[in-house]
Amino acid sequence: MKKVLVVHGPNLNLLGQREPEVYGKITLDQINERLREKAAELGLELSIHQSNHEGEIVELIQRAPGSFAAILINPAAYTHTSVAIRDALAGVGLPAVEVHLSNLHAREEFRQRSLTAPVCRGLIMGFGAYSYILGLLAVAHLIEE
Amino acid sequence: MKKVLVVHGPNLNLLGQREPEVYGKITLDQINERLREKAAELGLELSIHQSNHEGEIVELIQRAPGSFAAILINPAAYTHTSVAIRDALAGVGLPAVEVHLSNLHAREEFRQRSLTAPVCRGLIMGFGAYSYILGLLAVAHLIEE
Amino acid sequence: MKKVLVVHGPNLNLLGQREPEVYGKITLDQINERLREKAAELGLELSIHQSNHEGEIVELIQRAPGSFAAILINPAAYTHTSVAIRDALAGVGLPAVEVHLSNLHAREEFRQRSLTAPVCRGLIMGFGAYSYILGLLAVAHLIEE
Amino acid sequence: MKKVLVVHGPNLNLLGQREPEVYGKITLDQINERLREKAAELGLELSIHQSNHEGEIVELIQRAPGSFAAILINPAAYTHTSVAIRDALAGVGLPAVEVHLSNLHAREEFRQRSLTAPVCRGLIMGFGAYSYILGLLAVAHLIEE
Amino acid sequence: MKKVLVVHGPNLNLLGQREPEVYGKITLDQINERLREKAAELGLELSIHQSNHEGEIVELIQRAPGSFAAILINPAAYTHTSVAIRDALAGVGLPAVEVHLSNLHAREEFRQRSLTAPVCRGLIMGFGAYSYILGLLAVAHLIEE
Amino acid sequence: MKKVLVVHGPNLNLLGQREPEVYGKITLDQINERLREKAAELGLELSIHQSNHEGEIVELIQRAPGSFAAILINPAAYTHTSVAIRDALAGVGLPAVEVHLSNLHAREEFRQRSLTAPVCRGLIMGFGAYSYILGLLAVAHLIEE
Amino acid sequence: MKKVLVVHGPNLNLLGQREPEVYGKITLDQINERLREKAAELGLELSIHQSNHEGEIVELIQRAPGSFAAILINPAAYTHTSVAIRDALAGVGLPAVEVHLSNLHAREEFRQRSLTAPVCRGLIMGFGAYSYILGLLAVAHLIEE
Amino acid sequence: MKKVLVVHGPNLNLLGQREPEVYGKITLDQINERLREKAAELGLELSIHQSNHEGEIVELIQRAPGSFAAILINPAAYTHTSVAIRDALAGVGLPAVEVHLSNLHAREEFRQRSLTAPVCRGLIMGFGAYSYILGLLAVAHLIEE
Amino acid sequence: MKKVLVVHGPNLNLLGQREPEVYGKITLDQINERLREKAAELGLELSIHQSNHEGEIVELIQRAPGSFAAILINPAAYTHTSVAIRDALAGVGLPAVEVHLSNLHAREEFRQRSLTAPVCRGLIMGFGAYSYILGLLAVAHLIEE
Amino acid sequence: MKKVLVVHGPNLNLLGQREPEVYGKITLDQINERLREKAAELGLELSIHQSNHEGEIVELIQRAPGSFAAILINPAAYTHTSVAIRDALAGVGLPAVEVHLSNLHAREEFRQRSLTAPVCRGLIMGFGAYSYILGLLAVAHLIEE
Amino acid sequence: MKKVLVVHGPNLNLLGQREPEVYGKITLDQINERLREKAAELGLELSIHQSNHEGEIVELIQRAPGSFAAILINPAAYTHTSVAIRDALAGVGLPAVEVHLSNLHAREEFRQRSLTAPVCRGLIMGFGAYSYILGLLAVAHLIEE
Amino acid sequence: MKKVLVVHGPNLNLLGQREPEVYGKITLDQINERLREKAAELGLELSIHQSNHEGEIVELIQRAPGSFAAILINPAAYTHTSVAIRDALAGVGLPAVEVHLSNLHAREEFRQRSLTAPVCRGLIMGFGAYSYILGLLAVAHLIEE
Repeated sequence: MKKVLVVHGPNLNLLGQREPEVYGKITLDQINERLREKAAELGLELSIHQSNHEGEIVELIQRAPGSFAAILINPAAYTHTSVAIRDALAGVGLPAVEVHLSNLHAREEFRQRSLTAPVCRGLIMGFGAYSYILGLLAVAHLIEE
Repeated sequence: MKKVLVVHGPNLNLLGQREPEVYGKITLDQINERLREKAAELGLELSIHQSNHEGEIVELIQRAPGSFAAILINPAAYTHTSVAIRDALAGVGLPAVEVHLSNLHAREEFRQRSLTAPVCRGLIMGFGAYSYILGLLAVAHLIEE
Repeated sequence: MKKVLVVHGPNLNLLGQREPEVYGKITLDQINERLREKAAELGLELSIHQSNHEGEIVELIQRAPGSFAAILINPAAYTHTSVAIRDALAGVGLPAVEVHLSNLHAREEFRQRSLTAPVCRGLIMGFGAYSYILGLLAVAHLIEE
Repeated sequence: MKKVLVVHGPNLNLLGQREPEVYGKITLDQINERLREKAAELGLELSIHQSNHEGEIVELIQRAPGSFAAILINPAAYTHTSVAIRDALAGVGLPAVEVHLSNLHAREEFRQRSLTAPVCRGLIMGFGAYSYILGLLAVAHLIEE
Repeated sequence: MKKVLVVHGPNLNLLGQREPEVYGKITLDQINERLREKAAELGLELSIHQSNHEGEIVELIQRAPGSFAAILINPAAYTHTSVAIRDALAGVGLPAVEVHLSNLHAREEFRQRSLTAPVCRGLIMGFGAYSYILGLLAVAHLIEE
Repeated sequence: MKKVLVVHGPNLNLLGQREPEVYGKITLDQINERLREKAAELGLELSIHQSNHEGEIVELIQRAPGSFAAILINPAAYTHTSVAIRDALAGVGLPAVEVHLSNLHAREEFRQRSLTAPVCRGLIMGFGAYSYILGLLAVAHLIEE
Repeated sequence: MKKVLVVHGPNLNLLGQREPEVYGKITLDQINERLREKAAELGLELSIHQSNHEGEIVELIQRAPGSFAAILINPAAYTHTSVAIRDALAGVGLPAVEVHLSNLHAREEFRQRSLTAPVCRGLIMGFGAYSYILGLLAVAHLIEE
Repeated sequence: MKKVLVVHGPNLNLLGQREPEVYGKITLDQINERLREKAAELGLELSIHQSNHEGEIVELIQRAPGSFAAILINPAAYTHTSVAIRDALAGVGLPAVEVHLSNLHAREEFRQRSLTAPVCRGLIMGFGAYSYILGLLAVAHLIEE
Repeated sequence: MKKVLVVHGPNLNLLGQREPEVYGKITLDQINERLREKAAELGLELSIHQSNHEGEIVELIQRAPGSFAAILINPAAYTHTSVAIRDALAGVGLPAVEVHLSNLHAREEFRQRSLTAPVCRGLIMGFGAYSYILGLLAVAHLIEE
Repeated sequence: MKKVLVVHGPNLNLLGQREPEVYGKITLDQINERLREKAAELGLELSIHQSNHEGEIVELIQRAPGSFAAILINPAAYTHTSVAIRDALAGVGLPAVEVHLSNLHAREEFRQRSLTAPVCRGLIMGFGAYSYILGLLAVAHLIEE
Repeated sequence: MKKVLVVHGPNLNLLGQREPEVYGKITLDQINERLREKAAELGLELSIHQSNHEGEIVELIQRAPGSFAAILINPAAYTHTSVAIRDALAGVGLPAVEVHLSNLHAREEFRQRSLTAPVCRGLIMGFGAYSYILGLLAVAHLIEE
Repeated sequence: MKKVLVVHGPNLNLLGQREPEVYGKITLDQINERLREKAAELGLELSIHQSNHEGEIVELIQRAPGSFAAILINPAAYTHTSVAIRDALAGVGLPAVEVHLSNLHAREEFRQRSLTAPVCRGLIMGFGAYSYILGLLAVAHLIEE
């Protein structure tokens, strides 16, 4: 069974309480549960982590090769500011899929720039929790290739 | 049965022959076939159009309300230059999903700006033909809501 | 009797249903009716066209000299993206008046730039359908000069 | 009878002598006369002021509520530099119409930015003295609404 | 008893009626009263002025040395446009504190730039009328030093 | 005999009447005649098209492979705004030469950017109708290689 | 008794030794002591933390709701680079006050941009350690409201 | 005897006390005295004015034609912010010379832009009070021409 | 027989050895030979110079009037940095044609700006050595006019 | 014996496996070994740390004074994003040398900006692992001074 | 007798023939004669040089200390492009005055930036040949100081 | 014995007298002496040149292949302005090392851009004369490889 590393970036642990008009009412645990159900369907095993620390996310990614076939990541705020996570993703060379709950194009100017997207295979945004499900499908597709 | 309008923008009719190292070897007919299979699975009916004309795409979108529940669109080159398509999408108010074959973030600077994305619900890019399948799933999800 | 070419740009055929909080509830037919009434008052004859196609608008303008004394144009979305319409307006050399329903200065950044305004005689915006009536008065004034 | 405040910004007292190739040969008195005639037609009473002082224009606007139903303003040079006039216009909340003699889009780059337009209802430019007549019609229209 | 010059910039005389959702319902007189009470507590004497005229504000500042120990200023709109007030503040060399009612960082882009702040000792914004009270405390603190 | 596709972009059908101080007095028919004469000399056959429609130009280019050995194109206004024509040129992979009547470097700022030039082999501008003759020679040279 | 979370960002533990010409000679312990004295006066209880870790600051903020009525934060270097802290502040929705020891407007260009200020209620800078005292007063004021 | 209008802009009345390390120790009266001596030598009569009010400077300039042969102006802070003074200078059409005490190129970025210089004949800066003497010589030279 | 000045800019003497994947394998001598053959055909006499010195190129151009009817120039690196060569070309007023071996639009950003092109009649680039032959034809055409 | 703090920033622990075409095949352990050998030669003692955490690097630097005579740092990805590390380096005031394995000038645009370089004494980049040896020599040189 | 180095930059040897509508009809020899006359009056000796070579101008400046008391320079085109001349001027530390024949503020955008002005004492422009006379007076004034 | 070309750019001949607070008191002869000593140690032979002429530096580089194994260059002012030197370095293809005496990152904005660094192997700056010694070591290292 293929293993996938799932990384939730900063403040995603607040989901459900943080700005529900932007991010919805679903909690991170509920998203993870849905992800695990979908993963079971797809024959994938998930290792799910949330971190508010740039360095921890860097290290989660660094340790992925060998154990994981792909990465599903929502870098959240670090999308726009972390060259370190970008370099980690580029460095490990695993196929990665970037997801976002909200449609960043419809938000502040500074959220339009993604430092991480250029080193991911693809990008999915704007569908709330369902962005993760689509992301997992994309990951499954990339692994099959 | 819910109907979905699928719009392929300019030059997508060249798929399979046009810069295959960027866009892959699959043809537009093959993509459409896969979309129709997936739609059948999802209980959706598709009306699929390709056009190289900005004005035609505007009008396809304008005629959608009443007949269609949602729009799946790859605006291709017009993503970066068409305020008219953006205004049409905003004008009809149907949920729309924007998809791209390639990861625009890993290409030329001018492809980073999407005029249409801010008025779509979400955006999927970088998975080749599979971007469309994910896009259709997203559409189905939006219709269900 | 002097003839005036009236050109409505893309998506204006949606008026009344498209984003009424921005563009009002009046339809294009109602605007045209009001324009024709005002034209009659002013002793002008109107030829009114709506097109979603940049190329068609270019050609409407190109054919104007000889038949028309002036142009009243709402280039809508093409205001911000069409060098071709600008070049057509400059090329035919007829006095032209640009009108907009909404106050573009109070909207998105990209709507602040008008490619067409520098080659028109003047610009009127922000008064909803009444922008057209004022535009027609301006046209009549320019013809009289 | 409804009263309208008319404000002419800096250097407009020079009209007729100042750069006639840009602003025409008409004097400010002649414009005011035409405005008064038109106002009479429209059943409006005008209070007309010219000032070269930003602070005075701010105060003319501040005193408008209560006495006036709307404002017709050509902020001239202050269009591009005065946040204070913008704030005054926004502060009093009366409908305001901005007019310019020349087509600012066909002039220097720094004249493209209007600080005042976003807080006015609409904008008219490029028709010489007739811009004021159109502006007064627009004001009348806004009052009627 | 130390004297402090208090300067209210343009449109602040409108307080209470001007855009209350941005600036609150308190009037300038009420703010001044609170300032005077606080000043009494702090053993300071205030000379309070409101002006809509850039030149007047320049001159209020110019006359301060000799009579005043410090300046408390809300330059309002002139914050963003007046090099003259900046030069006056720098020229007299008295400690100055800049205050704003609203949080400028949460408003329009052009309100982010302060020409005056670099020549003031410090800056306080976002607390409504209480910004002034904090500003007066800051002034008292600077005088004590 | 090698065939060459010649594409004239928007407003070039106005040549001879449109801004003759910029574009000269020669008509498009006269240019085409000269091109055909030169082509005969060079042993080339020409298929010449003028279009004001971005989409039509895209499709002329798309249909070129198989029938044509090279493309000679004056994208005119679309030079600066059309990613679709750029993508078509890149997509068909035929050698293409871009020509312009006027020297764009001596004109407005927005005419300095060419979206199409980076995917053409070379660029010729500023020699009026003779730009086309030089362009045809360049095409002949590229075919020979 | 209301509780307030006080957060000192990176390098503030160096206070007193780090660039005293910019930040003064006072140590962080001395600032904290003064803050505690003032809090006692104001009937507030403080929980004070210094961290050089972006993620830790994010988590301090995340845990605030329930325990704290407001936040007093000097994000120091993270002011200019941390979307994560901004998102945390926006996410928890508590009133927050941003303070800085120095006047950022009088320093390097890159210190002019605050990512965190737009989601705080207000901002105080330039008064050295006294910025904190003013900040605490502002916090008390916001709680009272 | 030819008359010359001399205009000193805002804060120049502070000369001698204001930032002497930038502007020198000479007072405005001393500069005016030197100017009058030099004018006598050159057979010119001077009318000298200092104003901190943009509007007053505009009106000084507006009243110049008829009475004065040329203008010598140090717009000081208004150099960088006043379109109104620029428009007045352009409007009256008299030869004008702009002078500055300090070398603006060696100061803050925002002092590099001069709104007034493009409508003056020439510019002299950096020589302290002697800039005025050189400016008067330049004025004399322009009058002679 | 008409004489033409041919100027090769810096590093063109390296042709054939310098980055052949960009500039081709042909040497400058071979290009000159081809130019001379073509010139003979066209009844033109050439004076050919290569220089790596901006000042020398300036002087070659300065000495041209009187001896030469036109200039064919590849300013190479100085295209992007030399105002002096631009001023020389504008100063002598001879018709000039700018040529480049490579298509600058397909290279680094800084090579997109040409300081010299605005003062030349036209521009030819991207055809390797054949750019020079086309340039010579253009020169011949300009002389004939 | 003088002690030197050596800091390796994020992702440098991946050396040898991460993008070897950019960073080479040498591992961090091998670099450290070489550094230690060189240090022995130079009579220096090294304390070597790698961290992916911005905050940890900040604290490593903060603790340096007293124990270390200088700092050798490769901030890696934090070079471009960390004001906190910059402030720490400036705060401790020890001589610091910044090194990079690759030539950042030949890479992505965003890697051209170094936030840390302005507060270091000098910068060395582009020589792979040998950049560190040169950096250590530079450190030794700075200590000797 | 004090000696002054006078440096004329590139293309100034063309004066009288080069673009007389911009630079006037006077020749460089005539300017030099006028400068020598004025110098005699002022008790100064001049050493006058014109060069089209950046390097030569650098060396003229380098050799000035010891022999000359000040520099009068019209860097012409190199004003906008030469860091080398700027560094030479800063390096020798002699008082320098920059002059220009035309008013650069009324010309192309790229002529607005002066690399050399920040290291000169002052700047004079726009008075044709008389700019040099004023410049020499300024030099005399600086020497006297 | 391997030979290395050492190139000192403009104004470096002034070393020791030119702005010693920026560049130090050492002369170029002393630097060259140190370089020769170090070269002897490293078994390298040096050919050392200083030039203030861009064209001369271009030609020094052009003549290097065949005679030299590598280039050590301090382009000084030309670092920021010379595409010609960049093209020469890229053209000859020898390994080159760029050095600077001062830390350019801590100086004026325009000194942050290096046109030459992208085509050098590496860059060393900020260590005064010792930058050259480190540069020579880097050159020796590159030759060994």
